[in-house]
Amino acid sequence: MSKSVPSWERLRELIVSQNANQLTPFIETLSPSETARAISRLDEKEQQILFSLLSPEDAADAIEDMPDAQAADLVEDMPSAQAAAILEELSSDHLVDVLGEMDEQASHAILAEMDKEDAKEARMLLEYDPNCAGGLMISEFLVYKTDQTINDVLNDLQINRDEYVDYHVQYFYVVDQADKLVGVLRMHDMLFPTRGARLEQIMLSSPLSVFHNASLMELDDFFEEHNLLGVPVVDDDGRLVGVVLPNAIEEAINKRKTKTFLRLSGIIGGEEFRTMPLLSRSGRRLSWLSMNIVLNIIAASVIALYQDTLAAVITLAVFLPMVSDMSGCSGNQAIAVSMRELSLGLVRPTELIWVLAKEIKIGIINGLVLGLLLGGVAFFWKGNPWLGMVIGGALAANTVVSVTLGGMLPLVLKKLKVDPALVSSPLLTTVTDMCGFFFVLSFAAAVLPKLGGM
Amino acid sequence: MSKSVPSWERLRELIVSQNANQLTPFIETLSPSETARAISRLDEKEQQILFSLLSPEDAADAIEDMPDAQAADLVEDMPSAQAAAILEELSSDHLVDVLGEMDEQASHAILAEMDKEDAKEARMLLEYDPNCAGGLMISEFLVYKTDQTINDVLNDLQINRDEYVDYHVQYFYVVDQADKLVGVLRMHDMLFPTRGARLEQIMLSSPLSVFHNASLMELDDFFEEHNLLGVPVVDDDGRLVGVVLPNAIEEAINKRKTKTFLRLSGIIGGEEFRTMPLLSRSGRRLSWLSMNIVLNIIAASVIALYQDTLAAVITLAVFLPMVSDMSGCSGNQAIAVSMRELSLGLVRPTELIWVLAKEIKIGIINGLVLGLLLGGVAFFWKGNPWLGMVIGGALAANTVVSVTLGGMLPLVLKKLKVDPALVSSPLLTTVTDMCGFFFVLSFAAAVLPKLGGM
Repeated sequence: MSKSVPSWERLRELIVSQNANQLTPFIETLSPSETARAISRLDEKEQQILFSLLSPEDAADAIEDMPDAQAADLVEDMPSAQAAAILEELSSDHLVDVLGEMDEQASHAILAEMDKEDAKEARMLLEYDPNCAGGLMISEFLVYKTDQTINDVLNDLQINRDEYVDYHVQYFYVVDQADKLVGVLRMHDMLFPTRGARLEQIMLSSPLSVFHNASLMELDDFFEEHNLLGVPVVDDDGRLVGVVLPNAIEEAINKRKTKTFLRLSGIIGGEEFRTMPLLSRSGRRLSWLSMNIVLNIIAASVIALYQDTLAAVITLAVFLPMVSDMSGCSGNQAIAVSMRELSLGLVRPTELIWVLAKEIKIGIINGLVLGLLLGGVAFFWKGNPWLGMVIGGALAANTVVSVTLGGMLPLVLKKLKVDPALVSSPLLTTVTDMCGFFFVLSFAAAVLPKLGGM
Repeated sequence: MSKSVPSWERLRELIVSQNANQLTPFIETLSPSETARAISRLDEKEQQILFSLLSPEDAADAIEDMPDAQAADLVEDMPSAQAAAILEELSSDHLVDVLGEMDEQASHAILAEMDKEDAKEARMLLEYDPNCAGGLMISEFLVYKTDQTINDVLNDLQINRDEYVDYHVQYFYVVDQADKLVGVLRMHDMLFPTRGARLEQIMLSSPLSVFHNASLMELDDFFEEHNLLGVPVVDDDGRLVGVVLPNAIEEAINKRKTKTFLRLSGIIGGEEFRTMPLLSRSGRRLSWLSMNIVLNIIAASVIALYQDTLAAVITLAVFLPMVSDMSGCSGNQAIAVSMRELSLGLVRPTELIWVLAKEIKIGIINGLVLGLLLGGVAFFWKGNPWLGMVIGGALAANTVVSVTLGGMLPLVLKKLKVDPALVSSPLLTTVTDMCGFFFVLSFAAAVLPKLGGM
């Protein structure tokens, strides 16, 4: 079976032999995810040769299969004219996604090489926040004037059949002479009336629409509420400027989730793929780690303050990382629940008291259970009940702190317009580390004579 | 403005006064996310009264606005007959989502009360893995026989217009006498031929379809490759059993992402909302924490082994949590990149060597940089170059371990069919804690005389 040769090896052969004739048929045999994987395994030079051998249409098909960040990386390195020829083949929403991942200089250079109309449209779309209706809409939709007839529409459909194949939209929008949206028609509305009927006679008037600045959550609510295959987007004057499809909303939510997940794990500044250059990957990871090292130093300085206590009861050193780690875990659970509820709109950033009331109870219960567990371990290990109480008490107290803080941090950060995914976890860890060290060492200092030299 | 009174306060008033007449209109003024939020803020008893006051249709509308887990919780507590009446109003895919979140006993009880045909269909759908075509398909689609005419279809559309309004599907599927899928028609294919034409004459034959056991990734690839609004699902004999819409794929990916995110943060066993009962929330969080406490004890036992070294150089206790924390951060970055590449199909679970080769370089670079930083801090703080070398060397070595391990763990776990989201992070933390403590303390033990009493 050909399974034994990875697809990128075969691809590489075809590239090295400059075999343009076999290249396209070969890529067509690959599934989209396999295409993305194969291309990503080529080195930069091979990728450039590959894309110079493919027609713009085939190159665009390949680009569509790749994650936006990877596609942008690839296109950025091409001559602008080649990049423009390929990107012109993408649908408007996809084009804007890829351009949005580039730095501005690169995207401007490509736009300058594109067809003027397409470039103008893309620039307009790029101006929108990618998570509002304007940033999510497509420009490929069917629009007719009020005084056109069903026959006009059918003729247009017949003539432009090939172009419309790529149009997702299932509705015909009707605008007046000033381009204001005044009606909508579904395909089956055309089946029954006479073919000479004017659209204004048969259209559904005052159709549902959203404003160009509607937020992702408003759009999500819209499609939850209305079982539609698309919603027209109008500007402040009511002019039809685009159409948002429900899939675009799900995709945008998906993207936001990915970003949140990556940021929470310390992958900041966009996506990372292992096919990206080593130094840029390493540098981006380091930028987050070096912030963390500073926070770590601050937290650990608490230990330095209590060095005498620690020297007197060296056993405490075993428990310091445990108390801080466990509290970090408890706090991160609370962060996750808050992030989830925020993203679903089940909690608002102002509802701190509600979250506090809900989390403090969990903090107390889980603090008691975990404190008893770890305190018990400490007690049985050294046979000293005071050690058990110090460790158990410290973990219990610190669990209450970390759970309530973890629950509230994302709300506070969101209210301060700081990205909770980026900041919640490092901040929580720092505070719970400090408090954990402080509780263990100060409780121990208070009962030092009882702890003896352990 | 009424903004000052939260919507659930108003809802509560209407419930307490049993004001069924005003209840439905009030809920209709709320957006879906606001509805979900308001209902979730009621206590269990208020929720039960609310749903007994609403008609099944209105109750189903409200249920649709809520996250599945929350909806399931609510419905489970109702009498089965009431629950069945409400759930019958949901579309088949939504119904199955909600039933799938319940325990089997509850879902069986509800199914027993449902219309026999609907229940049979739901049981069939429930048997499928929720992330394959069978689990993602809907049963609401339009199907005709080969010998029917356009006129037959148009008549059917006219007659059943009201029912079909809720049908998302934009295609007509054509089956033979054995219910095997043999053709497809789009709405506009009906616009041009004569109305007496039989479907087999005008249909597109051998339409694209997927098998009922196609995976989420295959379906995602399908819609990437084919610009379609739905794909018919066939069983092993080629019989048409359902239709998968592209939105269902995005939604399933979204759900999987949420699950991954929550599990990585220690929220296991399904979603948690703050409106769920306190003890179940606390218990579920504890189940994960108590596993972690055991892992923590194992890791910290390394410190106990080196208690003498630590007693001789108490300053080391300050650096122990820093080295283990920092390595945990570095390792979690690598985990995140692997999880992301796995979910996109950019890496396969077997490609351990490739990941190792990619990560070890980052581990070395970042290890050196972070080691120099923290080693420098240690050196300047105590003025002892040996301390700097011990701490810096330990962090560097441990970063290499954690980055390579973090990169490979998700692949290994996936290959072993263990959920990487659940296990990667705790396992990584345990290993990097142990190694971190071991590196610091064993390096220090090796140069103990040079460190003096600090």
